[in-house]
This record gives sequence, structure tokens and C-alpha cells, in this order.
Amino acid sequence: MKVYQAIASGNSYKVRILLALLKVPHESVMIDLAAGEHKQPAFTALNPRGEIPVIEDDGHLFWDSAACLAYIARKHGGEQWFPSSPAGIAEVMQWLALSASEIQFGLQYGRRGATRGIWTVGGPNECQTLSRIALDAMERRLKDHDWLALDRPTIADVSCFPYVETAAESKVDLAPWPAVRAWLDRCRALPGWPARG
Amino acid sequence: MKVYQAIASGNSYKVRILLALLKVPHESVMIDLAAGEHKQPAFTALNPRGEIPVIEDDGHLFWDSAACLAYIARKHGGEQWFPSSPAGIAEVMQWLALSASEIQFGLQYGRRGATRGIWTVGGPNECQTLSRIALDAMERRLKDHDWLALDRPTIADVSCFPYVETAAESKVDLAPWPAVRAWLDRCRALPGWPARG
Repeated sequence: MKVYQAIASGNSYKVRILLALLKVPHESVMIDLAAGEHKQPAFTALNPRGEIPVIEDDGHLFWDSAACLAYIARKHGGEQWFPSSPAGIAEVMQWLALSASEIQFGLQYGRRGATRGIWTVGGPNECQTLSRIALDAMERRLKDHDWLALDRPTIADVSCFPYVETAAESKVDLAPWPAVRAWLDRCRALPGWPARG
Repeated sequence: MKVYQAIASGNSYKVRILLALLKVPHESVMIDLAAGEHKQPAFTALNPRGEIPVIEDDGHLFWDSAACLAYIARKHGGEQWFPSSPAGIAEVMQWLALSASEIQFGLQYGRRGATRGIWTVGGPNECQTLSRIALDAMERRLKDHDWLALDRPTIADVSCFPYVETAAESKVDLAPWPAVRAWLDRCRALPGWPARG
């Protein structure tokens, strides 16, 4: 498996977490975000959205972090990390959706804005509002459950972790969400969970 | 199955399309968006994001349109609409992700802004930019494929359809994307595909 990624990218980190947890051998192709390599034709030929991560495996090419997580989980983790039953898959996918919407447009873009001054969609207030919606939804689940979906860690947790962990860089103080903070620690304590890098 | 929904909501329409295609008996609970019923405690107890659709079935409760589609597809459509193989699931999920990101924050919020004057995340320019990214990605796939994922209609098509169909209401003219326009017609021609309502 070939993984196009960058260390600074939280979306790439999602893929690195799952590859580490499942001990999947792979080759990394590092993309130079500062030089805009992900927006150049050689890369957009792989992903029309011009974003990392992208994975290549067995003649397949997949863009989008949730799709990459789904592929890796189903191929290397059996039913454990992304089940195939109707209720199991739907429960996990609720949180992948939160990741792609409120977490991306709130915490992720809020972090990019706060650290690099780039505000592409909405400004600090909009990002704060979306971040709070995401964290409130997570808190409500996590105040009496250890994991976001089912009764075990799944790609729901992997997908939501990176941009919640860096909430301070998005100018979001996690103090009002104690169950979310405890969950971050539970994730980090999983055997094989890698540091951000 | 109980479906909390509204006729004006494109996300609810996604669920109605799949329920119609698969002929799934269900009961609808109509939510009054104009009165803000989806933001009131009785409803946010069901969905912390305060959004429709939500489905209830066999003691399960699911929010988010992609999660609802996944549940219905796996329960009532076998492998056809949402396969469980690693490559099949990942291919479909790429387009569910596009739906939750660029299509939602571009076409959906651009439509709400243009028709109701409500701009919650970004303004007209940001929505136009995100809409173009989504439509370019779809055009590239559809110019030599009939369907977004695999070689058949899947929930990828169901999920992307509603807010692309109403692009004109988002002030996006689909003229530059002929393959997308042909795909809209192919979707509508599927046996059982329901009109918006």
C-alpha cells in the first residue's frame, strides 16, 4: 500500500493511526503542502479535490480520509474497526459524517485559520460555532460510553481524534467537554496508537 | 421504520429516494423546519446536531443522512447499494464524503443562502467555490462512467443527487458539467426513483 500524506495534516494522521494499530506495512509518499504540491496537476490527477491523504493499493486508488479508513479497516481489521451489519455500519458512519462536516469546517479550518491566517470557508465565529456543535454531540455520547460507536474503538474514534486533539490550536478550550478529554486519553492509551509525529 | 423528515429538505429526500427504490414500508414524522422544530429540545434529544433526517428502527436511532442511507441499504438492499468489500465500500464512501463536505457546504448552504438569505458558514463566493470543486470531481468521474461508484447505482448516487439537482437554486448553472447533467437524467430514469415532492 502506498500512502500520499503529510505529517502536518490531521487527515493523514487518521490514516497513520489505523495503519499503526493494525500493523499494516506501507510506503509513504510525502506531499509538500507548503509548496502547494497537493494542488498541482500531478497530484490532482490522483485526487480531484486536491487533498491528502490518498491511498493506492492493489490497483485501487482512494481519496478522502474516511474512505481510506474504511478500506484499511475492512481489508486488515475484519469486522472489528468497521463492521458490516446495518446497525453497526450506521453507528460508525454517524461519526464519520460529523468528522467530514462540523469537525472539518469547525475545528480543522479553525486551526488552519488560527495558525496560518487562511480562512477559506467562514471566519473564526463560524468555526467556533461548528466546533461546539461537534463537541456537544461527542460529549453527550461519551459521558456514558467509552467509545463513539458500539462498545469498542472503531474508525469513528480514529476519524474524530486528530482535530479534537489539536482543539487548542483552533482556539477552542476543551474545558467544557470533560468526557471528550477523557476519551482523548483513552484513545492514546490504546496499544499501538501513534503520536502525531 | 420511522423517518423524521421534511419535504423541503434535500437530506430527507435522499432517504425518501432509497426507501422508494427499495420499497421499504415506513412511517413519516414531518418536522416543521419553518417553526424551528428541529432545533427544539424534543428533537435535539433525538439528534444532537438538530438536523433531519433521523430514522428509528428496531430500537435503533440514527442521525445523519449518509448513516441513514447506509443502514437502509445494508438492511434492505443486500450488497447492491452499499457493498461490504474493502474496495467497494471505499469507492462508495468517497462520494458520501463529497456529499458531507463540498456538496453540503457549497450547493446546500448556497441554496439556503440564495433562497432564504441565511448564510451560516461562508458567503456566496465560498459556496460557489466549493460547489465547483464538487461538480468538477463528479464530472471527471462521470464523463466515462454511468455511475459515481462501481458499475451500478449505489448510495453514492442517491447521496449526491438532491443538491446537484437543485443547483440552479444555489445560483450554480450546470452548463459546464454536461456529464453531471446526463447523470441526473440517468438517476431519474431508474425504476421507482421518486420526484422531490
